[in-house]
Amino acid sequence: MDEAPYGSEDSRGYNSAYGSEGGRGHDCAYGAASGGEGGAAYDLITMGRIGVDLYPLQTGVSLAKVSSFGKFLGGSPSNVAVAAARLGRRTAVVTRTGRDPFGEYLRTELGEFGVDARWVTPVDGLPTPVTFCEVFPPDDFPLYFYRLPKAPDLELREGELDLAAIGAARIFWVTGTGLCAEPSRGATLAALGVRGGSFPTPPLPAVTLGGSAAGLREDGPAAGRRFTVFDLDWRPMFWEAPEVARTYYCEALRHATVAVGNIDECEVATGEREPRAAAEALLAAGVELAVVKQGPKGVLAVHRDGAVAEVPPVPVDVVNGLGAGDAFGGALCHGLLAGWGLERVMRYANAAGAIVASRLACSSAMPYPAEVERVLEGGRA
Amino acid sequence: MDEAPYGSEDSRGYNSAYGSEGGRGHDCAYGAASGGEGGAAYDLITMGRIGVDLYPLQTGVSLAKVSSFGKFLGGSPSNVAVAAARLGRRTAVVTRTGRDPFGEYLRTELGEFGVDARWVTPVDGLPTPVTFCEVFPPDDFPLYFYRLPKAPDLELREGELDLAAIGAARIFWVTGTGLCAEPSRGATLAALGVRGGSFPTPPLPAVTLGGSAAGLREDGPAAGRRFTVFDLDWRPMFWEAPEVARTYYCEALRHATVAVGNIDECEVATGEREPRAAAEALLAAGVELAVVKQGPKGVLAVHRDGAVAEVPPVPVDVVNGLGAGDAFGGALCHGLLAGWGLERVMRYANAAGAIVASRLACSSAMPYPAEVERVLEGGRA
Repeated sequence: MDEAPYGSEDSRGYNSAYGSEGGRGHDCAYGAASGGEGGAAYDLITMGRIGVDLYPLQTGVSLAKVSSFGKFLGGSPSNVAVAAARLGRRTAVVTRTGRDPFGEYLRTELGEFGVDARWVTPVDGLPTPVTFCEVFPPDDFPLYFYRLPKAPDLELREGELDLAAIGAARIFWVTGTGLCAEPSRGATLAALGVRGGSFPTPPLPAVTLGGSAAGLREDGPAAGRRFTVFDLDWRPMFWEAPEVARTYYCEALRHATVAVGNIDECEVATGEREPRAAAEALLAAGVELAVVKQGPKGVLAVHRDGAVAEVPPVPVDVVNGLGAGDAFGGALCHGLLAGWGLERVMRYANAAGAIVASRLACSSAMPYPAEVERVLEGGRA
Repeated sequence: MDEAPYGSEDSRGYNSAYGSEGGRGHDCAYGAASGGEGGAAYDLITMGRIGVDLYPLQTGVSLAKVSSFGKFLGGSPSNVAVAAARLGRRTAVVTRTGRDPFGEYLRTELGEFGVDARWVTPVDGLPTPVTFCEVFPPDDFPLYFYRLPKAPDLELREGELDLAAIGAARIFWVTGTGLCAEPSRGATLAALGVRGGSFPTPPLPAVTLGGSAAGLREDGPAAGRRFTVFDLDWRPMFWEAPEVARTYYCEALRHATVAVGNIDECEVATGEREPRAAAEALLAAGVELAVVKQGPKGVLAVHRDGAVAEVPPVPVDVVNGLGAGDAFGGALCHGLLAGWGLERVMRYANAAGAIVASRLACSSAMPYPAEVERVLEGGRA
């Protein structure tokens, strides 16, 4: 196994880097499952892709040579919900499966991961998607999607959404893939509209700049602290052309308060490839916080109020880079809900991503808080 | 594991039964790989479906509970070619895959099984199909096909076929699935047309009626002994309605000399469900030999010249019924080429099918001649 600072492009184009320095974690106050709220609002509702991931049980070889596969829950926003649940958050997923045994499996599996699957409904006539990957550590993880003629998760319809619950969630998370086809596109934009309209997003708490990992403690009922995250999640095979995507990405960014993406994804959304310029373009498009995953150069986060955090990669023996971005996303949500400073949030998310990159699985590999702490203390996944 | 005479419906509707009595095998002369010919003609060319089969490594549980899968070459006509190759026959497959690692795997795997893959070509833009199954022995093996929006093997085109080689093959084997969509339908019918036109099929050698397993020995150069097999292979999910299929099934039967199918498949082709009536209807539709697989009641074979063979099932501890029909088909080809009597051919094919039913895999489970002999001698798979 090569040792590498995790951060090369994987097949999703996930490009984060995991910082080894800093973050001691001594000043963290992790939120309880419900985030300390008295009400029924979810800490996190994600909306979008789900499927069965089939991962080779032999790594470093082509699919042509793999003799057996393990079966895992997959799909980026679903994994983000799993990652946040592992960190103690109350989460739910809005998505659809086929009406088949794989669909049953996904609903059951979400439940076992502590994610509410009440909004995961079956679609007749479309099989639950499966995705194969090849595992060539440290930086090559091609994906082979079986989502044709159409994935059930693209059959999400506005009229079937629980818009009150989506509006009330402390964080609502959508991805670019949900915009690639109707009726999912309209449903996704409608859900974002509920967020933008009824629940104006107050600014982040004051962030800590520079090298300190100190941040604010989570301060109990955090009614004022809501986030709407748009994960740029660019999968070219789901789109005719990047130009088609950009129109809808811009519309989503107008409703979101946080944008997360790697350089390729930022370019699709904004036309910019230079990280700081891309971050500024995302802010200009409407969000308050732009998180740019730069591979070996680390992660850059820029807030509209002027706060900037840039954190380096965590050294890691990469086993499978897939899912690291989802671990990053789940931990990002956890840190935002906790009210930590920007740099602390990024270090924490980086560490969570590095842990998953060091493991074969995705969903079942999502770290518990103590595991993230150990990496933040030891500097190594 | 339940013990059952193999013969219940599997998800393909494969319905054969494996006879335990009779067949001693003492009078068999197995053909060499080339069937003793001096020329370059193949013993068997099959045309149609191919894909990657993913079989649960845990049996008796729903796909929802399966944690890992093994990867195997699949697709009925491809497996028939593998089965005949295992019995020493020179075989080739005409089919198409995606241009992806699974497609490479299938070409390589055919070669390793001794099947010529020169006519297995990649199609851009369509993934190699994958098929999952559930394994509930002894009689329930649901299949989950991922062949949408279109399987590459349905992109076979008449203009790309080696019609001279197809015409010259001692046996040419097609299946009903190849008729479910264009351009495969036109290509399949064109290939059948070459068989019917240029190469009139002489009658079977005199067959042995009644309980004796004796048959004719293979007599070296067998220029006169050619067969064109239509495997009725009814997969309802690939068709709008049975009535649509029947039109094309009838056209194929006009060109074929042998028809093979279970009761459901015979009904699609002829409207008849009573085995003898179905066999007669197949003969009336144009073939010389009708093989009706009747599940627990065994196999019925009726020849136009009046010969009839009916053989009972072989008792078998069924592990996975999938692939048993393909083993039956490959052994049927072997027996026809060997020039055996009708009953001997059926007993031999039944035994080969029972062996595969007693194993998890399909392609890699196809029996060698000595294994079939042992079953014929011992009466048990």
